[in-house]
Amino acid sequence: MMLYDTKVAPNPRRVRIFLAEKGIVVPTTNVDLGKLEHRDDAYSRINALQRTPALVLDDGTVITESVAICRYFDEIQPEPNLFGTGAVSRALVEMWQRRLELNLMLPTAQVFRHSHPGMAQLEVPQIAQVAETNRPRVLDFLRVLDAHLGARRFAAGDAFSIADITGLVGMDFLRLARIQAPPDLAHVARWHAELSARPSAAA
Amino acid sequence: MMLYDTKVAPNPRRVRIFLAEKGIVVPTTNVDLGKLEHRDDAYSRINALQRTPALVLDDGTVITESVAICRYFDEIQPEPNLFGTGAVSRALVEMWQRRLELNLMLPTAQVFRHSHPGMAQLEVPQIAQVAETNRPRVLDFLRVLDAHLGARRFAAGDAFSIADITGLVGMDFLRLARIQAPPDLAHVARWHAELSARPSAAA
Repeated sequence: MMLYDTKVAPNPRRVRIFLAEKGIVVPTTNVDLGKLEHRDDAYSRINALQRTPALVLDDGTVITESVAICRYFDEIQPEPNLFGTGAVSRALVEMWQRRLELNLMLPTAQVFRHSHPGMAQLEVPQIAQVAETNRPRVLDFLRVLDAHLGARRFAAGDAFSIADITGLVGMDFLRLARIQAPPDLAHVARWHAELSARPSAAA
Repeated sequence: MMLYDTKVAPNPRRVRIFLAEKGIVVPTTNVDLGKLEHRDDAYSRINALQRTPALVLDDGTVITESVAICRYFDEIQPEPNLFGTGAVSRALVEMWQRRLELNLMLPTAQVFRHSHPGMAQLEVPQIAQVAETNRPRVLDFLRVLDAHLGARRFAAGDAFSIADITGLVGMDFLRLARIQAPPDLAHVARWHAELSARPSAAA
């Protein structure tokens, strides 16, 4: 088994945190996006979409997409549980994982990719208006999230889950995109601090 | 239980097809996006993000996000299986569900939202350059998908899955976005025809 990882990118970090929470160690190869290693022939044969992470199993099966890689490890080692237990809990974990991905990570990535000078080579063309229109979407979602977290410890309820991993990575991504979370969002700040204090956050 | 549905939108259709494949019937309320019913107070109390679909359980629990709603029904009625069986299969279904969502549906939606005159009221501001840059991304992905489907019947292998539902809805969305799938993509065309012939496609 080999995990193709990228040290500085948000999506591969989701998998690293997930593995740290599970206590699973996997052999890793770093793919340097800055050197465009994800676009070379060797990596393109592993993932034609030229993105990291990717997990290659011993029989050659390739699993891409961060959440799909996490799902694989969850299936082979269910504990500690990170996808929820029972129909409602599993649906709520999926719901909040997706909400945090689609309404926090994705628009933050749009701001980052379309405004950061360091992304000029990777995001062609950079469109300033995309950054401008996505910034308020992130802030609007953070307000909804704050109200939600006022009534529960973690994104999907009482238990830590993969939704919180996506949330932590999304929150940490704000800085790169130069978005400041409004300081009055006390519940978001409390939640972010608690997630950041877990040993897995260092992954 | 009540499913808040929208007849003409791609995401709610994913849930309807999923339910048709499972043979599950759920009471439904239509939310008319054209009349901005998704933004009124009553619906905003159900889903603060003002999107459809949403499923409200008898105890008042609200599940949003199409795939999370499908996950709920899969958990309470596992057969017929649409999320894969076994660790590798479940990971590959998740991988292809996400690939079809993020690389077919999402950029197609970007083209549609940023170029269709009918979306001027819902996508503010429409940015023509977003439509232009996402159109080739859809076509690039369809080429990768065509190569993939040359070696297997369905998106995630031999068995029909939720990945194919996302694929069918994504393919049908191309027409609305005025994107033509290249006619030489024979495997994509064969797969799309087979999915379209299933009774569930009418949902």
